Amino acid sequence: MTLKSIDREYLELAIDTAYRNISEGGGPFGAVIACNGHIVARAANMVVPSHDPTAHAEIEAIRQASAQLGTHDLSECVLYASCEPCPMCLGAIYWAGISRVVYASDRHQAASAGFDDEKIYSELALDKDERSIVMERGLRDQGDNVLRKWEEYPDKVRY
Amino acid sequence: MTLKSIDREYLELAIDTAYRNISEGGGPFGAVIACNGHIVARAANMVVPSHDPTAHAEIEAIRQASAQLGTHDLSECVLYASCEPCPMCLGAIYWAGISRVVYASDRHQAASAGFDDEKIYSELALDKDERSIVMERGLRDQGDNVLRKWEEYPDKVRY
Repeated sequence: MTLKSIDREYLELAIDTAYRNISEGGGPFGAVIACNGHIVARAANMVVPSHDPTAHAEIEAIRQASAQLGTHDLSECVLYASCEPCPMCLGAIYWAGISRVVYASDRHQAASAGFDDEKIYSELALDKDERSIVMERGLRDQGDNVLRKWEEYPDKVRY
Repeated sequence: MTLKSIDREYLELAIDTAYRNISEGGGPFGAVIACNGHIVARAANMVVPSHDPTAHAEIEAIRQASAQLGTHDLSECVLYASCEPCPMCLGAIYWAGISRVVYASDRHQAASAGFDDEKIYSELALDKDERSIVMERGLRDQGDNVLRKWEEYPDKVRY
């Protein structure tokens, strides 16, 4: 598939960001977010240097772009990623309302480099009792009541 | 299902955190993380007040716990959530290595309150061309090469 010129430029920047990050102690992933054609965020994976398991390039870029634009709604934005987003990052992309993602490498290449995104995709599709992590439920009524209170709350800001 | 006493106590704290957050302008979700029985993080949903679509209670709690413990590895931790984690947060839970999650309400109750976690679970299980967001690929060789460089890099810290 041939990318448009601007998509190619921004995806190359995401890949370059990933490449440079290796020798700086981070993971080999980079992301760029553009809004109406202009770059608003550029980030690399910072899990190890930041001691933060959520600090994937895409999450960092979404946080930067949101801060830059002053809103959690990134529906005018395109995200460029050096590799296919993992389930955490793809979930964040949905919550941010980003409607287009352009990426280069994929989950299978990531798995062969030791990043098992594919396993997490598989786990998320399982019922909770079939997953490798233990998931227990309790206090259902108390939990449900919080959501009912939200529904009734007149000043809520939906997102 | 009956929870153990300590699980009940910490889950009640997560639910109370969610409840109080509504009148403070955040979403109706709370999370607590305990490590070896001691609380290391407690957080509420901050999406709207922080202008950050990733600021779900579980993500905030994971970031707090990682900062507190100085590591991205939370395998000694249990996460308590007022509601079933969404795919973004469950992905983060896997990346953090958390092995047990205790939660109260669920994705169906969340959906009826306007939080469509279920749709995101469904979207993640689809092939990329079937999703509601546009996903395009390009520059595959350049993207793959970054991962090959990582594999060859002698000083990498795996995570």
